[in-house]
Amino acid sequence: VADSDPPFASVAIIGVGLIGSSVARAIREHMPKVRITAYDSSDTVRARARELELGEIFDTPCEAIAGAEMILFCVPVGAMTEAALAIADCLPKKVIVSDVGSSKVAVAKALREALPDATIVPAHPVAGTENSGPDAGFATLFHGRWCILTPREGYAKANVARVSDFWERLGAKVEIMDALHHDLVLAVTSHIPHLIAYTIVGTASDLEGVTQGEVIKYSAGGFRDFTRIAASDPTMWRDVFLNNREAVLDVLQRFTEDLALLQRAIRWGDGDTLFELFARTRAVRRSIIEQGQDDARPDFGRVHE
Amino acid sequence: VADSDPPFASVAIIGVGLIGSSVARAIREHMPKVRITAYDSSDTVRARARELELGEIFDTPCEAIAGAEMILFCVPVGAMTEAALAIADCLPKKVIVSDVGSSKVAVAKALREALPDATIVPAHPVAGTENSGPDAGFATLFHGRWCILTPREGYAKANVARVSDFWERLGAKVEIMDALHHDLVLAVTSHIPHLIAYTIVGTASDLEGVTQGEVIKYSAGGFRDFTRIAASDPTMWRDVFLNNREAVLDVLQRFTEDLALLQRAIRWGDGDTLFELFARTRAVRRSIIEQGQDDARPDFGRVHE
Repeated sequence: VADSDPPFASVAIIGVGLIGSSVARAIREHMPKVRITAYDSSDTVRARARELELGEIFDTPCEAIAGAEMILFCVPVGAMTEAALAIADCLPKKVIVSDVGSSKVAVAKALREALPDATIVPAHPVAGTENSGPDAGFATLFHGRWCILTPREGYAKANVARVSDFWERLGAKVEIMDALHHDLVLAVTSHIPHLIAYTIVGTASDLEGVTQGEVIKYSAGGFRDFTRIAASDPTMWRDVFLNNREAVLDVLQRFTEDLALLQRAIRWGDGDTLFELFARTRAVRRSIIEQGQDDARPDFGRVHE
Repeated sequence: VADSDPPFASVAIIGVGLIGSSVARAIREHMPKVRITAYDSSDTVRARARELELGEIFDTPCEAIAGAEMILFCVPVGAMTEAALAIADCLPKKVIVSDVGSSKVAVAKALREALPDATIVPAHPVAGTENSGPDAGFATLFHGRWCILTPREGYAKANVARVSDFWERLGAKVEIMDALHHDLVLAVTSHIPHLIAYTIVGTASDLEGVTQGEVIKYSAGGFRDFTRIAASDPTMWRDVFLNNREAVLDVLQRFTEDLALLQRAIRWGDGDTLFELFARTRAVRRSIIEQGQDDARPDFGRVHE
């Protein structure tokens, strides 16, 4: 695909945080002919985006999207409605509207309501780090990661194909999925893990009998793994939970039941139940590594010097 | 310390897995004059330990400990009693007995009952990876990590000082702690994180509506972080939970309460409660990195190419 014309001659990025700035960098790297325009509601972020030369940065969203063939909303999912309403009166003809939100049913609904005549192809690149802001982005963030598109049934295939082509050129693999199914899958693979991580870091911080200093000192026993995703952007994650409520509560209920079973096994000294689960979960890790979705080196490749 | 005589002229390692083989490699690297002898109850592991030249490997524990100044039990905590009873009748005079078990009250009790006349200084190096067996070990595993000693009150300081010196020479930092307090601290920083990780990987594997293939594909959204520690040795971890029951159940109760609070916040759309916690947990990650207990690079330093 790399030799043919890019799917969009001009892309407008609304929101220049970790993901928005990574998209800008990845476009520059993989599709250097594409014009990149951008807007962020924060003065500070816009100023920094200019210093980082992430594209043509404008002070209003309407200036940023003028002439764009794709508009990509890279704002927290709770800010989608406001960001979309801000361009409702200046939307270019034939533009494709997309986003990178981590929940898809609520975001697609918000975009459709704010922009009822727009061509909308919702997307979710399953990639990120614990860092936030325009400095945190990098061009290879999407390499080998999956990007899930959730177009409505019966949607024009040509539009979906262009968005798909866009993400593949940034190095991602693309999957088409129903929005409702996406929200369940991501509740399991992303939202509940974040919720659990935030919870356990909070629990550890608040325990009487164990100081925060001790928690930090001895974190290499496993706890530190959870602190990474618990350092993710608070606004983004608050919005994810409020906008994928049903699926998150469903999976959380299952998790709580499974945890209660193990709690009971520990209380009654039932080693077989513990061993059976602990032996089974190893295979999942092996598959993730085989499919290139994690680092094969022990300890995530952390340096031991 | 490195220039003076090592605290033990001869060290016997019982159990040559990840930790035992790392200790052997670290001794060879940092105290090359020290004689290393070893025994493992598995024929396969003994054979492999010989191939890896991890020390003088013996076919019986009594041969391995003959002439040793320190005996270090590196077996799962549930196997301590059996391993200690096996040397009860051939224990050298003046030897110091130690271990690397992840729970300390139960292990110390087991060792004292099996070896009532021995000089016992229990220890726990808070270090490891998700891999197991003699091939998984490496000499730098303990560098910059904490090793907790839990001698009984009123114990001869000279013995504790020698074990402390031993671990510091392997690159660790040493802390002395009451065994009961150790078990609570480690329940928070290690045991509960492992239990949660095992649980969530199990929950994700068993969900109807989401295939295991999907869980693996989209694991980069956060789930993959949990699969690392859920790939740890099942026998070791079964034993930890059965041997630190009280502290694990205590902390688990607190975690469950905290999770219920967030569950309720999600159900009722209380974004402030979510945001308040999510903003607070970032500071913990920052402290862990500042104190050198985790990799400062984003995403644990995973490769993004």
